[in-house]
Amino acid sequence: MKLGPLNHVGVAVPNLEEAVACYQEIFTPESISDVIILEDRGLRVQFVNLPTGQVELIAPMHDKTAIAKFLEANPLGGQHHICFEVADIHAAVADMEAKNIRVLASPRLGAHGTPVIFLHPKDMGGVLIELMETPKEGH
Amino acid sequence: MKLGPLNHVGVAVPNLEEAVACYQEIFTPESISDVIILEDRGLRVQFVNLPTGQVELIAPMHDKTAIAKFLEANPLGGQHHICFEVADIHAAVADMEAKNIRVLASPRLGAHGTPVIFLHPKDMGGVLIELMETPKEGH
Repeated sequence: MKLGPLNHVGVAVPNLEEAVACYQEIFTPESISDVIILEDRGLRVQFVNLPTGQVELIAPMHDKTAIAKFLEANPLGGQHHICFEVADIHAAVADMEAKNIRVLASPRLGAHGTPVIFLHPKDMGGVLIELMETPKEGH
Repeated sequence: MKLGPLNHVGVAVPNLEEAVACYQEIFTPESISDVIILEDRGLRVQFVNLPTGQVELIAPMHDKTAIAKFLEANPLGGQHHICFEVADIHAAVADMEAKNIRVLASPRLGAHGTPVIFLHPKDMGGVLIELMETPKEGH
């Protein structure tokens, strides 16, 4: 498995609208996506689009989500995960398992509409790493 | 001021050689830079190069550095900062000050050889943000 581009950094925020307004006002980025609702994970996200890479602003919809727990420990918000692209998510899962890196759950659709996995931070120097399958051209 | 590319994510690590070996073995990235010594900041860093973006692995040379303090709180390591490119660092400083975002110190040379600043995490939703001047072509 070879790592593709650094797709985005996930940032937990207590209030999505305030965070979007802050990035908009301070940094005047290329654009900011509409709100994407990840219903099964209880999250609302928006992507701040840069010439390459994105910042994913992530807010919890209720207090049972992993992001809500993160915000209990970091009330202002903070860096939550780093996302790299891979060509094939199932090959990535097999490769990680062969290397004894714990994969936190089976691949599921992420905010970009392609399957993603997360790697256990204790196996990755304290960093929560997301691997997402690169979206196919034209999709 | 308009934000340029997501240049890198800074990751604090207790041991640079072990972290480099881990990224090399697990992810087989495009390449990994040589060690860069930031003598004035007491840091050794190496960049993991991806098709776009980089991971900056950062290890302290002594325990008086900010990274050593970060590692006291996060012994495994963890995400330390996000770095975006800007066209002109002095324009960025003026823009941040006009918007009441605290700049932590005057511009100084970063690991890419161009001037950088850091923004106060309390003004940026708990995220330590580095702005670095885009390297000029051919340099």
